[in-house]
Amino acid sequence: MIGLSSYAGVMESLMNSAEEQQPSSPLTNSWSKIQESSKNQKPKGVGGFVLVHAGAGYHSESKAKEYKHVCKRACQRAVDQLKAGALAVEAVAAALVELEDSPFTNAGMGSNLNLSGEIECDASIMDGKSLHFGAVGAISGIKNPVLVANRLLSEAQKGKLSAGRIPPCFLVGRGAHDWAVSHGIPPCPSEKMATKFSLSAYKRNKRKMELAEKMDTGQNQTKKRRQSSENENGSGCLDTVGAVVVDLEGNVAAAVSSGGLAMKHPGRVGQAAHYGCGCWAENACNMNPYSTAVSTSGSPFLTSEDRVLGGVIVLRCCRCVEAQPSQNIQGILVEFLWSHTTESMCVGYMSAQDSKAKTHISRLPPGTVPGQSLAIEGGVCRLMGVVD
Amino acid sequence: MIGLSSYAGVMESLMNSAEEQQPSSPLTNSWSKIQESSKNQKPKGVGGFVLVHAGAGYHSESKAKEYKHVCKRACQRAVDQLKAGALAVEAVAAALVELEDSPFTNAGMGSNLNLSGEIECDASIMDGKSLHFGAVGAISGIKNPVLVANRLLSEAQKGKLSAGRIPPCFLVGRGAHDWAVSHGIPPCPSEKMATKFSLSAYKRNKRKMELAEKMDTGQNQTKKRRQSSENENGSGCLDTVGAVVVDLEGNVAAAVSSGGLAMKHPGRVGQAAHYGCGCWAENACNMNPYSTAVSTSGSPFLTSEDRVLGGVIVLRCCRCVEAQPSQNIQGILVEFLWSHTTESMCVGYMSAQDSKAKTHISRLPPGTVPGQSLAIEGGVCRLMGVVD
Repeated sequence: MIGLSSYAGVMESLMNSAEEQQPSSPLTNSWSKIQESSKNQKPKGVGGFVLVHAGAGYHSESKAKEYKHVCKRACQRAVDQLKAGALAVEAVAAALVELEDSPFTNAGMGSNLNLSGEIECDASIMDGKSLHFGAVGAISGIKNPVLVANRLLSEAQKGKLSAGRIPPCFLVGRGAHDWAVSHGIPPCPSEKMATKFSLSAYKRNKRKMELAEKMDTGQNQTKKRRQSSENENGSGCLDTVGAVVVDLEGNVAAAVSSGGLAMKHPGRVGQAAHYGCGCWAENACNMNPYSTAVSTSGSPFLTSEDRVLGGVIVLRCCRCVEAQPSQNIQGILVEFLWSHTTESMCVGYMSAQDSKAKTHISRLPPGTVPGQSLAIEGGVCRLMGVVD
Repeated sequence: MIGLSSYAGVMESLMNSAEEQQPSSPLTNSWSKIQESSKNQKPKGVGGFVLVHAGAGYHSESKAKEYKHVCKRACQRAVDQLKAGALAVEAVAAALVELEDSPFTNAGMGSNLNLSGEIECDASIMDGKSLHFGAVGAISGIKNPVLVANRLLSEAQKGKLSAGRIPPCFLVGRGAHDWAVSHGIPPCPSEKMATKFSLSAYKRNKRKMELAEKMDTGQNQTKKRRQSSENENGSGCLDTVGAVVVDLEGNVAAAVSSGGLAMKHPGRVGQAAHYGCGCWAENACNMNPYSTAVSTSGSPFLTSEDRVLGGVIVLRCCRCVEAQPSQNIQGILVEFLWSHTTESMCVGYMSAQDSKAKTHISRLPPGTVPGQSLAIEGGVCRLMGVVD
């Protein structure tokens, strides 16, 4: 449906599991009912779907298990939220916290170190219902940058500040850190966010840089710089984590978080913090029957790069009604996909009806070159409710 | 042509002046020749067109002269560059420097002060030829933020850094400041960038805020916040400056610079620094015969605002050939416009063939409400060269 049959490896099993599992019990309070109920009532029948990724880059077989684990936990966190009646935007933030907390991802804990040996993170989140957006750039000393982005978003939803001031939606650097702390988000000493792995990678990169600069001395530096195509970023350094969620009300949300490039200049902000670049979420409206949520990895600014390395997760959904012998089933048809030009990408997905998340390390076909070929996979999932 | 007849108040006079003035002398080295000449040769026949604005907001009659003056000077600076053979991107940066240096604009010198009484600026620039983009956010202690953005752009065009590192295109806060200084851009003490006007506005705003917060105490603060529609931003505080340029090679460029909202939280970055938000420039290509450059003012994030206050300047151009009795005239047809929902917007424009810039304070029609109605004006200009 809707062209999804053309995706490589459509996850029919997921569709089945979503349809067959728990066919009635938690869904008796249908999605359509929720839509009709007053806004103050929490929906009793809850559910939804989450898709996460732990980075588009290179995932060694030896660490495959770790990456899958963190994706699984992230999905579970989002689903726990959805089952507790949270909206998509809260669920997507919960998934991101888990991804950031893993020392294996380049986000939050274990992020790449910059040129000065510090961690500076970017993150953003978008709520498809309100179209509000929150973002932080080059933030230090905060364990979960996505929570600051989410707090910016929720504070903005409260309306103007005193004296008619417009609340911020994008804060950077020291100002972002101070705002977070003043809003009750605890600071985290930088040394606690670095890992053995990130510190040794920093030392290795530093040596490599010094060596490269020594070799350049006395030569035509500009030419050297252009020719230097030796790529550090092929081995996971471009990693960004992200998630997309739809709740049973049909609201979508997307979020992204990144430690940025290894050895970046202090103050550098990457696409994860950019409006319309790192993530996007937009609920269906009169003009468009589809709700869409997207989270990206890689950089759109690299117009000079011959090899564009990146990845994306996408979720699109619409309402669907189906006549059945005993009752009318109404619900949401969720189409989802992941795609990457990097060597590999680790994803996980789960519907609230599933007992556990499915995880997968997607790889480019053997013999193909990163940046020159593309892997694309996806599936469909039906979230159902009963109409009286 | 191309729908421009529908713009209110098409500037036919400009079109005439561009066509009639100096009909032959400086243009004997035609644009088409430049296109054919090798890239190492500086074109001898040079020219182009610039459109600038000094802010969409409210311009009192008493200050009208000042705003027009700064627009005039900014146009002249860009045209001087174009006449000296500079590309569009250099010319647009030169115009912005003049706009930033004025104490009357909310950019560079005289920018709004933030909550801590500091100046933090945003700026970005885009080159339509390379599609490279450079931006700084929340930068302090630099007189001309646009020069840092432009330097980021030009450094990125040189290719990778040592050890294959990708150069930054967006730097914020302290890191942006340090990068600028290490690239030869002199620091400027913050106290030199504040003006009598910005300091007294800060004190006034501070008092207003304290009063508003005192009034809130003991009441339902959230409700109060939402209702507080008293708007400080109607009176010029949203001001941003910008420019768009086309050179005689047909390259376009756009730039934007802003001191941001008065009393903003430290670290807040506005749209002027955002990729795809503050400015855009894109040369014609095989797929699209038009080159386009845009610079905006106001915020696209304000989905919660009932009144969207903003302004935009746009330049679109394409090659044109016209048969004439004695010779074939080939050149570039430039269409340009400005539009705003704010009370007023001060613009200036000039072609390299003009002896001086035209300036104009555009105002909403009498009796209309800012944010609810739109003013749109524009014109056309022909940049001409002779084909052998």
